[in-house]
Amino acid sequence: MSSTAGLVIPCKAAVAWEAGKPLVIQQVEVAPPQAMEVRIKIKYTSLCHTDLYFWEAKGQTPLFPRIFGHEAAGIVESLGEGVKGLEVGDHVLPVFTGECGECAHCKSEESNMCDLLRINTERGVMLSDGKSRFSINGSPINHFVGTSTFSEYTVVHSGCLAKINPLAPLDKVCVLSCGISTGLGATLNVAKPQKGSLVAIFGLGAVGLAAAEGARIAGASRIIGVDFNPGRFEQAKKFGITEFVNPMDYDRPVQEVIAEMTNGGVDRSVECTGSINAMISAFECVHDGWGVAVLVGVPSKEAMFVTKPINLLNERTLKGTFFGNYKPRTDLPSVVDMYMNKKLELDKFITHRVPFSEINKAFELMVKGEGLRCIISMED
Amino acid sequence: MSSTAGLVIPCKAAVAWEAGKPLVIQQVEVAPPQAMEVRIKIKYTSLCHTDLYFWEAKGQTPLFPRIFGHEAAGIVESLGEGVKGLEVGDHVLPVFTGECGECAHCKSEESNMCDLLRINTERGVMLSDGKSRFSINGSPINHFVGTSTFSEYTVVHSGCLAKINPLAPLDKVCVLSCGISTGLGATLNVAKPQKGSLVAIFGLGAVGLAAAEGARIAGASRIIGVDFNPGRFEQAKKFGITEFVNPMDYDRPVQEVIAEMTNGGVDRSVECTGSINAMISAFECVHDGWGVAVLVGVPSKEAMFVTKPINLLNERTLKGTFFGNYKPRTDLPSVVDMYMNKKLELDKFITHRVPFSEINKAFELMVKGEGLRCIISMED
Ligand SMILES: NC(=O)c1ccc[n+]([C@@H]2O[C@H](COP(=O)([O-])OP(=O)(O)OC[C@H]3O[C@@H](n4cnc5c(N)ncnc54)[C@H](O)[C@@H]3O)[C@@H](O)[C@H]2O)c1
Ligand SMILES: NC(=O)c1ccc[n+]([C@@H]2O[C@H](COP(=O)([O-])OP(=O)(O)OC[C@H]3O[C@@H](n4cnc5c(N)ncnc54)[C@H](O)[C@@H]3O)[C@@H](O)[C@H]2O)c1
Ligand SMILES: [Zn+2]
Ligand SMILES: [Zn+2]
Ligand SMILES: [Zn+2]
Ligand SMILES: [Zn+2]
Repeated sequence: MSSTAGLVIPCKAAVAWEAGKPLVIQQVEVAPPQAMEVRIKIKYTSLCHTDLYFWEAKGQTPLFPRIFGHEAAGIVESLGEGVKGLEVGDHVLPVFTGECGECAHCKSEESNMCDLLRINTERGVMLSDGKSRFSINGSPINHFVGTSTFSEYTVVHSGCLAKINPLAPLDKVCVLSCGISTGLGATLNVAKPQKGSLVAIFGLGAVGLAAAEGARIAGASRIIGVDFNPGRFEQAKKFGITEFVNPMDYDRPVQEVIAEMTNGGVDRSVECTGSINAMISAFECVHDGWGVAVLVGVPSKEAMFVTKPINLLNERTLKGTFFGNYKPRTDLPSVVDMYMNKKLELDKFITHRVPFSEINKAFELMVKGEGLRCIISMED
Repeated sequence: MSSTAGLVIPCKAAVAWEAGKPLVIQQVEVAPPQAMEVRIKIKYTSLCHTDLYFWEAKGQTPLFPRIFGHEAAGIVESLGEGVKGLEVGDHVLPVFTGECGECAHCKSEESNMCDLLRINTERGVMLSDGKSRFSINGSPINHFVGTSTFSEYTVVHSGCLAKINPLAPLDKVCVLSCGISTGLGATLNVAKPQKGSLVAIFGLGAVGLAAAEGARIAGASRIIGVDFNPGRFEQAKKFGITEFVNPMDYDRPVQEVIAEMTNGGVDRSVECTGSINAMISAFECVHDGWGVAVLVGVPSKEAMFVTKPINLLNERTLKGTFFGNYKPRTDLPSVVDMYMNKKLELDKFITHRVPFSEINKAFELMVKGEGLRCIISMED
């Protein structure tokens, strides 16, 4: 038992009071975890586009004040009733989606879309009692996707915590909570390229580069990067991407360009843009007979996927993935081990570091499109 | 060597002289097989919708006179130069698509879309010399998809012949040349339902019922049949279909009806209609997290497959298949063995039989939509 167990913990958090306005670092009260919940001390957190998207609150119902953050690593401070498999002091990654272990999805070998703990961006409270664990002077502050890691302490459902190797450096593996695992798993778990394969990656942000990292690990012989932004190409070379295609350089669809470069199409493609056009191109650029395309990006609500049925009947496969098909509790520990075994490279994703007091700089970098991941250290 | 080897064989064939007009049984000359070709004596043939479609010649460039037919079983009469793995007297199934053994598709474990011998409905001649092996008084008669089985003798590329168990009854296994293998393979090779799965089959023609037969063999616990034509339902009961849905009976999309019947969707669906609406419904009725939909039907050229990307991102898989993903030479012999081992039931597909002299009756039955397969016996 830690000395703070059962008590309200006052600590620093970065609170978003208004859409698009700088976060305010201030004291919040963090209530003890309830049944099946865990309170954790966050050591490192990083920023992902999803935080930015809901902070900007364009196109959704805004929910403020709110504590954002969902890529992080921390240490268990105390446990609510009924929590199994976790102890005080365990090193954990909180995840925006979870694994109840009981539902049809958790029992399926294929799915990671838990019925109980599936991502919910509109909920600002904990599942068990519909209340927030954060408050300032007695007024509740909203949670974000069940993680709210921009706080020294946070409360998370135990089904959303991956217990990891205690030797893993938390300032590195914190990036595995979301985008990097999403891209990596899209390739390794869903596209599954064989050694020597030709792979195309659409979108060279952090997610796409993680998909490329998956292709490198799988032993792809050619990794073709596709992006509108030629600024992405220099960085992408570190990720094993050997050829670049900018759709803007051609007056015909990029899928035709790729088919010409590859004698009929790539073996696997992974779309990490969120653009519906890229989704369609990523599908149509795979080889007939055996090609598999995997969609990762989250497009606008009105977007429709459209293709000629013959593209399917010619034995192409189209799949989508959510969080790289990783089950948070079951699978993430082994992704951390891939890093520990030097199979997976993470350092190249980490382009910036700031102390918690300068968290707004991380937002500025992302708005400007600079770098990939900015690690925010809670202790400096 | 047979006594006719190297000679032109005069024999009876059913010649189509004009779109939609009854075939004429008359004498044709069948030239000897050239390099890599085989001449076979057809014992039994059956009629498939594709014959009917090209005989009606609506919407394609008509190619007449022509000898149709592509579902059949026969015996090798003589071999052209260079043919390996076949001997005079072998029992074979001719197939409208082939397996050269050399191209990327033939070398892939997944594809059966041979670059050299892939189906070509517009070619009326043999590959090697661009000539026909059929003639009447010296005038050539067009081939059809490289098989032209509505003739006592025909010439086929050796890559389009499956050598089968000589004990197999040819008047039964002849139906494995096309539609039945297509539906069966769509389920067994592509959808791959696990034991106890929930499976939906769209379209209860011969192809769809063969897909249902695949689901029965795989041990599906519920097989839901979907068809506009309630007349199909009675027959379908013999194929293990336990529940029927007629989309006409509902004022909401059939995928919603199926999701309600199955607590979120089926594990696998197989579309065998050729209707684009059925294709979309078949995809959208599979369960998120693990559902797989397989498209088999050949839709009109203008049809477009349209769905919301979220249906994919929620971890559904969409695939298409061609000839059930069976490689004709490598895989068909084992399908015949499945019948010989009583795992696969074929008798229930055979609803009519006629002698060759009455082949036009088989066309009439199909035009009226009566029955599933009509076996045409060349010897009576
Ligand atoms: N499914 C999941 O679980 C999950 C998790 C995290 C992120 N995502 C999604 O993954 C996508 C990528 O995330 P990110 O953080 O790497 O984003 P990012 O904005 O850093 O990178 C996207 C890249 O795509 C490029 N792009 C946009 N449209 C394009 C087009 N039509 N063709 C080629 N390139 C194009 C952009 O120039 C950019 O470089 C986003 O849609 C995000 O919502 C999904
Ligand atoms: N891919 C291949 O290799 C291959 C091979 C053979 C046949 N096919 C295709 O398979 C399909 C089926 O062949 P078949 O011989 O069984 O045809 P069929 O006409 O006997 O059966 C099709 C059935 O689908 C039903 N149907 C049509 N539209 C529907 C809809 N929107 N919803 C529900 N039911 C609908 C019809 O009522 C009919 O009963 C055809 O499109 C054919 O071209 C494909
Ligand atoms: Zn669950
Ligand atoms: Zn994220
Ligand atoms: Zn081939
Ligand atoms: Zn056919």
